[in-house]
Amino acid sequence: MHDNYGDDSPIAAFATVAGNSALTLIRCSGKGAIDLASSVFAPKKLKDALGNTVLHGWIISANEKIDEVLVSVFRAPKSYTGEDSLDICCHGGPSAGKAVMSVLKKAGFRDALPGEFTFRAFTNGKLDLTKAESVMELVSAKTDTSRRHAVSRLCGSLETEIGEIKKLLVHVLSGAEIYLDYSEDEISADADEAEGKLPNQDTALDALARLKRLSASWQIERIFQEGVTVVIAGRPNSGKSSLFNALLKEDRSIVTEIPGTTRDWIEAYVSVEGIPVRLIDTAGLRESSDSVEKIGVQRSRELLKEAELVLYLIDGAQGVTKEDTAFCVGYNAAEYNTAENAQTQKPLLLLWNKADIAPLPQNFEFADNKTVSVSAKTGEGIAELFTAIASAIQEQADYQLREMPAVAVGTERQKKLVDTACSALEEALALAEKEEPLDLIAPLLREAVNALGEITGEVSTADILEEMFSRFCVGK
Amino acid sequence: MHDNYGDDSPIAAFATVAGNSALTLIRCSGKGAIDLASSVFAPKKLKDALGNTVLHGWIISANEKIDEVLVSVFRAPKSYTGEDSLDICCHGGPSAGKAVMSVLKKAGFRDALPGEFTFRAFTNGKLDLTKAESVMELVSAKTDTSRRHAVSRLCGSLETEIGEIKKLLVHVLSGAEIYLDYSEDEISADADEAEGKLPNQDTALDALARLKRLSASWQIERIFQEGVTVVIAGRPNSGKSSLFNALLKEDRSIVTEIPGTTRDWIEAYVSVEGIPVRLIDTAGLRESSDSVEKIGVQRSRELLKEAELVLYLIDGAQGVTKEDTAFCVGYNAAEYNTAENAQTQKPLLLLWNKADIAPLPQNFEFADNKTVSVSAKTGEGIAELFTAIASAIQEQADYQLREMPAVAVGTERQKKLVDTACSALEEALALAEKEEPLDLIAPLLREAVNALGEITGEVSTADILEEMFSRFCVGK
Repeated sequence: MHDNYGDDSPIAAFATVAGNSALTLIRCSGKGAIDLASSVFAPKKLKDALGNTVLHGWIISANEKIDEVLVSVFRAPKSYTGEDSLDICCHGGPSAGKAVMSVLKKAGFRDALPGEFTFRAFTNGKLDLTKAESVMELVSAKTDTSRRHAVSRLCGSLETEIGEIKKLLVHVLSGAEIYLDYSEDEISADADEAEGKLPNQDTALDALARLKRLSASWQIERIFQEGVTVVIAGRPNSGKSSLFNALLKEDRSIVTEIPGTTRDWIEAYVSVEGIPVRLIDTAGLRESSDSVEKIGVQRSRELLKEAELVLYLIDGAQGVTKEDTAFCVGYNAAEYNTAENAQTQKPLLLLWNKADIAPLPQNFEFADNKTVSVSAKTGEGIAELFTAIASAIQEQADYQLREMPAVAVGTERQKKLVDTACSALEEALALAEKEEPLDLIAPLLREAVNALGEITGEVSTADILEEMFSRFCVGK
Repeated sequence: MHDNYGDDSPIAAFATVAGNSALTLIRCSGKGAIDLASSVFAPKKLKDALGNTVLHGWIISANEKIDEVLVSVFRAPKSYTGEDSLDICCHGGPSAGKAVMSVLKKAGFRDALPGEFTFRAFTNGKLDLTKAESVMELVSAKTDTSRRHAVSRLCGSLETEIGEIKKLLVHVLSGAEIYLDYSEDEISADADEAEGKLPNQDTALDALARLKRLSASWQIERIFQEGVTVVIAGRPNSGKSSLFNALLKEDRSIVTEIPGTTRDWIEAYVSVEGIPVRLIDTAGLRESSDSVEKIGVQRSRELLKEAELVLYLIDGAQGVTKEDTAFCVGYNAAEYNTAENAQTQKPLLLLWNKADIAPLPQNFEFADNKTVSVSAKTGEGIAELFTAIASAIQEQADYQLREMPAVAVGTERQKKLVDTACSALEEALALAEKEEPLDLIAPLLREAVNALGEITGEVSTADILEEMFSRFCVGK
């Protein structure tokens, strides 16, 4: 574990993005944080302030006024971290926050590590690991649905579910341990054990079913968190950019522009039934002698490899051309698939564009693909296209998107530990069926219980914590 | 004036930039704001909260928890706007803040107009116009020096200076008005008037001198606020990009990357003695048949027109070439100057680059320009270059950068009103010298007094206020 994590020294970090904003927020926490901040604040004394109060004043350095600020003071343990903390609200823009931060550091604060505030909240018992992780899920939620799932875990839904399953397993484990502590003669063997079952077999099966539901939930949850890459392809002038814009426009109210991701509107996130869809517009696919265009086409082909769904546009006014055939047949022959996913053929959704001037022919069928008739120009068929995209994602994912379980795991880490518990429990059940002795079975049950304890952080190692929190953003 | 400005209805706005940050701040203000926010907050009641306290809880909508937040409550008149106000600190990222904002708007808040919070602060007497404007100056301050100037005005330095000058003028004006109210016979004409002077001529001259100092301060202040555009030019491979990087690196601690301004490191702000310098790297200047390069060179020539200072690199290893001569002689002949500034020849700083392998020849002189010897590679001469850039800017600006007056005007608006007062006062003095009657002179003095009143906002019209505040950012 990094040297710095785990101490309680005063730390500070920007909690908002620098930019042309009205305000900038700096968060401070740690032992002596309030006294330190008080030494660079005037005219009131922060150190005399009650917890949960806001003071107006100036950050000062050698009697020079640096910035006019509002400081919220929080007294341990009533704060996010459980330590003495402050939120300093400075003016926005590139200078004020920077100047204040430099004064704070001169006063004795050090830069916070990624996730260090939440790390401290965890070590001070303010939240368990599932809640700690949900904080980052919430900050990175790209759609309203993923926000809602993160909030549910922040409210403790997963912590509670894991706690309940663990209680069931502890019951099974203690049932088994009774047999270990006493000889078989002393306890009348109950019906279960006699028939190749664990003591409290029903409880174990209940726990297993709930673990399996949790494990399966990750497939859905991951899609809501990470989203799906959808690439728009087609010949030049088939209307790709117009379609791109039409999809963004239709979805305007929930479009999420993530700075650093959206590049010149060539790439944007749209929400399709709550799933963040990374929509990519590509250069028209054609052979070209122009060197710049060649690079664009090459890039398009690479993007197609990343795609989880391809929207291929046919220019309705031109009908199906030999390039269209070459692409769609070639594509279906997995030409564009990478070695890793050559087996999983990526779905292709055919779009008959310009339907306003050239309607889709009746009984149109082409290269075995589903065809949606749209007009990027008039917006005709765009709503149907959203539904078709959602269905295509769903088919691929082999689950019912609309049957979101009430409780889901939120991270790969949680999923792996649920699977560990699952396997251990299944193995325990299998050994019991073979009527193997309980002293072989009990350790497996204990392993399952421990895995669940790791999910919430009751059982944890410095390594695990470091790996978890270092993936957080600074200021959280 | 816009219909919405000037009412006290509840408004809300993001006060921080959306992005991958830990937190997002939403600011709310207006009549009934606390009750409205209380209706979407749980479990505590915001409406029962004391002013200047922070409550922890959830923003809720129809019993659904939307986001976990900290809400700072401010009670009128103890708030930025002077109204009941709240700062809602939500989770960061693209979703949480957006979801909270949508709940607030459903509850009855409307989007704040640009500068509307500060507008309300002004109308509620929390600050005068010079302080209100300094808030925006502070948010857009690009260097520590410009921040310091803005803070000085936020502390009231300009308001005080204007107030004092105004008092002097009112004294002169009332002296003149005494003569108007009474016939000359009734008052013994004092020496001043008899000799073609205003009554209290010395006071008037004192005011005039202070107004002139203020007017002159704008020339300096504007440079600190807006910065200076410096373009790096030279033949291909003369080391332009290396120099660009060396200048950024040297200045790393105070480089300001302003989102949306810095484009792929072709353009960046560096601070040269507190002056924000917009440093632009250009494509090498040469005739080219490659169409892409041609566009680059064309763009370079256009950038040179924008430049307020050109750094022209000579490749020391090659010595002066005919292209260098053509450029520098051509440049000095104002080839690259636009029609508007053909008269003001832009300064050129010659840089002899690669001094580590090819030292600058003794007594080097070329095209009448000052030459600085540098090595972008080793960093040799870069510190001297910073000084040379600062001197070049200073020469151009016709003032002493280091002699920054204690009080300066911060906006074009203030400067114009100072000039109005100046001219009126000068005209009054001129009329007095011609021994014109005081009833012609008094209105000029009144005009000067009014102009000063407009600067601080004692005298203001709806039009002026609208124009001022609409240039603020939203959330301020």
